Amino acid sequence: MSTAHARERSAVSQLAPPPADAEALQRDAHEHLLLHFSRNGAFGPGGKELLVLDRGEGPYVFDTRGKQYLDGLSSLFCSQIGYSYGEEIAAAASAQMTRLAFNTLWSTAHPAAIELATKLASLAPDGIEHVFFTGGGSESVESAWKMARQYHLANGEPQRTKAIARRTAYHGVTLGALSFTGVPGFKDPFGTPPVPTTHVSNTNGYRRAEQGAELTRVLLDEIEATIAAEGADTIGILIAEPVQNAGGCFVPPEGYWAGLREICDRHGILLVADEVICAFGRLGEWFGSTRFDVVPDMITTAKGITSAYAPMGAVMVGEKVAAAMQAPGATLLHGITFGGHPVAAAVALKNIEIFEREGILENVRANEAHLRSRMEALRELPIVGDVRGAGYFWATELVPDGADGRFDADQRERLLRGFLPGALLENGLIARGDDRGDTVVQVAPPLISGPRELDELVDKLRATLVAVSLHMDIPTSA
Amino acid sequence: MSTAHARERSAVSQLAPPPADAEALQRDAHEHLLLHFSRNGAFGPGGKELLVLDRGEGPYVFDTRGKQYLDGLSSLFCSQIGYSYGEEIAAAASAQMTRLAFNTLWSTAHPAAIELATKLASLAPDGIEHVFFTGGGSESVESAWKMARQYHLANGEPQRTKAIARRTAYHGVTLGALSFTGVPGFKDPFGTPPVPTTHVSNTNGYRRAEQGAELTRVLLDEIEATIAAEGADTIGILIAEPVQNAGGCFVPPEGYWAGLREICDRHGILLVADEVICAFGRLGEWFGSTRFDVVPDMITTAKGITSAYAPMGAVMVGEKVAAAMQAPGATLLHGITFGGHPVAAAVALKNIEIFEREGILENVRANEAHLRSRMEALRELPIVGDVRGAGYFWATELVPDGADGRFDADQRERLLRGFLPGALLENGLIARGDDRGDTVVQVAPPLISGPRELDELVDKLRATLVAVSLHMDIPTSA
Repeated sequence: MSTAHARERSAVSQLAPPPADAEALQRDAHEHLLLHFSRNGAFGPGGKELLVLDRGEGPYVFDTRGKQYLDGLSSLFCSQIGYSYGEEIAAAASAQMTRLAFNTLWSTAHPAAIELATKLASLAPDGIEHVFFTGGGSESVESAWKMARQYHLANGEPQRTKAIARRTAYHGVTLGALSFTGVPGFKDPFGTPPVPTTHVSNTNGYRRAEQGAELTRVLLDEIEATIAAEGADTIGILIAEPVQNAGGCFVPPEGYWAGLREICDRHGILLVADEVICAFGRLGEWFGSTRFDVVPDMITTAKGITSAYAPMGAVMVGEKVAAAMQAPGATLLHGITFGGHPVAAAVALKNIEIFEREGILENVRANEAHLRSRMEALRELPIVGDVRGAGYFWATELVPDGADGRFDADQRERLLRGFLPGALLENGLIARGDDRGDTVVQVAPPLISGPRELDELVDKLRATLVAVSLHMDIPTSA
Repeated sequence: MSTAHARERSAVSQLAPPPADAEALQRDAHEHLLLHFSRNGAFGPGGKELLVLDRGEGPYVFDTRGKQYLDGLSSLFCSQIGYSYGEEIAAAASAQMTRLAFNTLWSTAHPAAIELATKLASLAPDGIEHVFFTGGGSESVESAWKMARQYHLANGEPQRTKAIARRTAYHGVTLGALSFTGVPGFKDPFGTPPVPTTHVSNTNGYRRAEQGAELTRVLLDEIEATIAAEGADTIGILIAEPVQNAGGCFVPPEGYWAGLREICDRHGILLVADEVICAFGRLGEWFGSTRFDVVPDMITTAKGITSAYAPMGAVMVGEKVAAAMQAPGATLLHGITFGGHPVAAAVALKNIEIFEREGILENVRANEAHLRSRMEALRELPIVGDVRGAGYFWATELVPDGADGRFDADQRERLLRGFLPGALLENGLIARGDDRGDTVVQVAPPLISGPRELDELVDKLRATLVAVSLHMDIPTSA
């Protein structure tokens, strides 16, 4: 990794010029830019300084004031190869942009998308061979649902109009995808979602008596009971992330995915693995499904497919689903203008080439045990109730009492929104505090990180958690 | 225009190498790529050859066999500046990619998005000053709806859960956006859409007795009656394109948009101008709303914002709507990972700079009358029942009888799907036959086109319509 890293650093001399005026950016952002999933009113005159990131290098980002941060969240689980491959990827993007900057996949195609689809099929679990390109994660989930509907209609099962998803799971926020998202606060203002979805338990084992195979049995029994209650032949899809992000990196217990596969097969339900986060090395494999030895019917992905050097997403399906779209006279009734954008496809191909050449998956596999042991050691802090994750995808669950208690709403506000963001930045770490489920702090470093960067990550996380403990009047040792 | 054009042509020497094997691309596409809004089964072994586009130059594209086409649709209304600015735009993309390839706008920001938001605010109709970035058109419409809901909730009007849109209009196909889309065939397989939407008449004046101000009065009366029937205080938004694409370039009659504005103001309804197609010069203005002297409450856009050199979309709103998202403690409950992607933002900024430097808007304004007169002359063909449009955005409506009859379903199948696509390609023209409404062929050339390219466009369209006439046993002169 280090050779490429050093080589890429030479690109710094060709950087765009720095932003002229950090103050003007603060003002212009306040006057003209609406931030996503943010309290927009918190920033601007009289409010907080907005973190404006200006450049990246390896796993680090720098703000407009020059302060350096370890990007412990890979910019929302995207920047798998970090920030130093710009020169190489830009050359690939430039070659495509000067050849064919754009065309659609609406009854026409272009070599970049065809080549990428072929490459992705070679990396996916066996039997997943067809690719429908989208612009990002929410669109991938929307597209998967619509293709699932077309599949069931083609099979003479129009009544399969419902879905099963899991509590606290995040599957996107366009209204269709929002049906599957299991976070009530994200849904309530927007009315009844279009896809009737029953949310079952996720694989959170913290605070549960059952663990391992016994937990699997309980969870699968709940799904069986749900299917029976709803009517097995009314369910179109079951959607789940290999490791669920929201709530904090819920790893499946032993045999869980094999169980999902068996249940879906038995009931004619399409099994959708939402791998917007879990694919492209986050769990040490091209696709998270591979880690759990399952071949889903559909895989949704985005984010890491380009390491976010360009926006892109995809739905991948096996022959069973594709056949419904390829039947004589059948029209795939969905389309996204920018889906399969040739420049994004060229970027994705180069990203995958870099993964292969630099051994990105191998790097994650080699260092996962080290990261795991460093993360597990955080349990020494009384504020840390649980540590869980896989690959380069970890959460600490915070508790008020050194046991398995929960923070109340006021405490969460004070901890997660009042104190934590500033404390993280002060420690030079980008990570995520979240309470869509219980109170967690998550890390997901760029997949180029080695032991040194992983140590830095956990050291900074620990320092932050100590500061949080002091702020919340929680002891810092047992 | 010609100087830049010549300069950019030198970029050809730096093109990516041509695809190795056209046959292999046909095979790989069939085996691995699912096409959007397409009959996927029509292509592949024993079927039609898939048009695989390999490179672009000015307003032209070339397939993998070397055949040249005039891109008379700007690759689905996107490629405003054509295909020859790759070198210049790639330099801007590369500078951003090597500085900061990615970061989100989720409680953080980066200079590229801030600068672009500020620039867009300066180009938009007065009072539209805040930008929420998305990944494309469907996401823009979804985001606009959710922001409208947050606006009404903040104003203590949670009951505004419905929408008004127009028949045959296309506003995207994610399930939320699909609520507004007025094409039943695109919606029926996917159940009841989440936003209860009443579709009113669009501004198609063909076959109507009323024209001009009288048509406006009829159309606005219908909207008033719809609002009264639904309950004025239950309507959240009224969404419409400045010139409606689907159905074939329906230009609004005199006073129509002023009427929409007045009705929406009177009833507390947010007026959403869907400018995914009509912005960025398509109608000779930065925003189509400007052409019709209206300031909507929200503008949705995408496509031309980057001339499709990178995927991007945006929702733009005025202070009234933004205030709901900026109120103390209010969270904008929507997010798109790739929204405002820094490389896409840099591409959009460069695209806008090229618009300004090369006089793209001025070029459209200077040549619109010429295009209009050439298009109007197509009425000489008995198959052409109507010609309509504005700017570089035109439709011919085809009729079987030299008057105002309609093709039946079998005829449309034979004409639009059986014969037309091949005839267009044979004539070296990319254009769009469509029957979401009545039977139309649409053109929307790149905005760099001058009189010579516009003549070529209409000549090729005329030749194609003559061939269609012969195929359908329709006379070719009166």
